[in-house]
Amino acid sequence: MATIFSKIIAGEIPSYKVAENDKFYAFLDINPLAKGHTLVVPKQEVDYIFDLSDEDLGEMHVFAKHVALAIQKAFPCRKVGEAVIGLEVPHAHIHLIPMQKESDMLFSNPKLKLQPEDFEAIAKAIRENL
Amino acid sequence: MATIFSKIIAGEIPSYKVAENDKFYAFLDINPLAKGHTLVVPKQEVDYIFDLSDEDLGEMHVFAKHVALAIQKAFPCRKVGEAVIGLEVPHAHIHLIPMQKESDMLFSNPKLKLQPEDFEAIAKAIRENL
Repeated sequence: MATIFSKIIAGEIPSYKVAENDKFYAFLDINPLAKGHTLVVPKQEVDYIFDLSDEDLGEMHVFAKHVALAIQKAFPCRKVGEAVIGLEVPHAHIHLIPMQKESDMLFSNPKLKLQPEDFEAIAKAIRENL
Repeated sequence: MATIFSKIIAGEIPSYKVAENDKFYAFLDINPLAKGHTLVVPKQEVDYIFDLSDEDLGEMHVFAKHVALAIQKAFPCRKVGEAVIGLEVPHAHIHLIPMQKESDMLFSNPKLKLQPEDFEAIAKAIRENL
């Protein structure tokens, strides 16, 4: 059965798309820790990120880097942090999270409540900085 | 001035080494969230991981993948998680953390208190699975 991320990539479930190429897709996390919190996923449906080939793993992180730099231009921060946890959705994904301080990366923090127009504006701002 | 990680790579500060090649070095985090918690750093002294070239960034994550798979063989877990935060030490590093559950990745968790002989045994177990 297709994962929720495969359905997002296929357009069967809507997402706030940030970037896409032939192998990877980036979109806003719908339960963000910060404005600009983005998920990067491979189009290949792989659960564990370390099951990707060396080549695809390297390319995924390079793709994520360019998305991260665009996030940082759109939402100035000290750094964009990365987290790969992956125990909830069985489809490998990298979290990209703008940080002002270390605790901004705590997944136990309350999530932002944003409106559809907020998500649209955030995704547009990142896309314009790619 | 050399970062603490450059001093570790140079052997000026001791570390529990897990793996090394010409570009990268992996050693145990001295304040681990779990047994097997490892740091992967580039020998090149770069603060922000996204300032690495695309080639080096990709290679660093491939190196980290092979260390992560050895950690998982030595310390069975659901997955090995990754985190890149980097606001404390100005030398890019990837945390590799064995996870049984999502909250194992919370940096607000209490750190394990281990003895030198524990660290030695953990590093040896990972090295033997590389």
